[in-house]
Amino acid sequence: DILERPEGLELGGDLRRVTIMMSDIRGFTTISEQLAPAQVVTLINRYLGAMTDIIMAHQGTIDEFIGDAILAVFGAPQRRDDDADRAVRCALAMQDAMADINRRNREEGLPEISTGIALNTGDVIAGNIGSERRSKYGFVGHPMNVTSRIEDASDGGEILIAASTLEALQGDYRTGPGRELKVKGIDELLTVHPVLGEQL
Amino acid sequence: DILERPEGLELGGDLRRVTIMMSDIRGFTTISEQLAPAQVVTLINRYLGAMTDIIMAHQGTIDEFIGDAILAVFGAPQRRDDDADRAVRCALAMQDAMADINRRNREEGLPEISTGIALNTGDVIAGNIGSERRSKYGFVGHPMNVTSRIEDASDGGEILIAASTLEALQGDYRTGPGRELKVKGIDELLTVHPVLGEQL
Repeated sequence: DILERPEGLELGGDLRRVTIMMSDIRGFTTISEQLAPAQVVTLINRYLGAMTDIIMAHQGTIDEFIGDAILAVFGAPQRRDDDADRAVRCALAMQDAMADINRRNREEGLPEISTGIALNTGDVIAGNIGSERRSKYGFVGHPMNVTSRIEDASDGGEILIAASTLEALQGDYRTGPGRELKVKGIDELLTVHPVLGEQL
Repeated sequence: DILERPEGLELGGDLRRVTIMMSDIRGFTTISEQLAPAQVVTLINRYLGAMTDIIMAHQGTIDEFIGDAILAVFGAPQRRDDDADRAVRCALAMQDAMADINRRNREEGLPEISTGIALNTGDVIAGNIGSERRSKYGFVGHPMNVTSRIEDASDGGEILIAASTLEALQGDYRTGPGRELKVKGIDELLTVHPVLGEQL
């Protein structure tokens, strides 16, 4: 696993332009309180299993699962010209996969779930973060925090992307009207757009 | 590493009473923007290295580093009667260690940093969270989110504990006046107390 044993990677820390993805199951904590622990783990692992496969297929780097949240990055350790495009196509594939996940949930009497996905593009410091006893390839920087705020603002079923990601895209996608977000620590409002699909 | 390969642990998910710790360097993102990437990694790894040693010495389970934030749990996989007490003593030792970290930072021309620490006690679902390709021993539940909100409210140098943790303590500690927090998804206000030290 390259994230856990990143031999050969820059140890000192590197400024990298990446597209950051954060996703989260809407209301999962409330859902989880109505289920037995084993059901919660079944539900979350079915979801994370499907999402992991899709993110890996789009060459995204999964930084972390935090409860039901996923933090992934496109563009580090390896940069590619289509990092932002792969991130958007990955998010679309993740939303498409929810129908199948919910069909299986219904069959087993488990609740349906929906996920909100945020994308943001910016420069972050990538490096081996941690201690001698425990380290991982991780990311630090303002764009990480901004992504988290966009994620907070996303609805179930939605993909919200920052203007920075929209500008980095090479392909054509259908987007909805922009919304403005207030982000802690930034004076100007941040404009985000929902991505509706690829332009056919 | 028991967290990465938790053989022998309950796979299905388990309801566990734990004391959750979240800590964060105040303003680290802004600090990091004024430094070279290698300096940022030096700064963060010095801090995380010291904190990791202290958390392990107090038998805490480090769930994750998320940038400069640390998520740790006391009481899982192994429960002990003094989980809450060890968490508080660990937090006190972490704050004590900051003076030495900042002395080293000053010597190298790096900025001084301060950390805010939040503790909260409650029932969470513990289990192997993730996918076949990537899983870890992780935690899900409302008390995790609550801890994150308390952490947002903590100042640099401060240890803020929820009433649930205060009630679970066996030892005597000096605490400051309670503060009330509004937490998303909870109607009643949450009372938190700063811990100032052990009662001598």
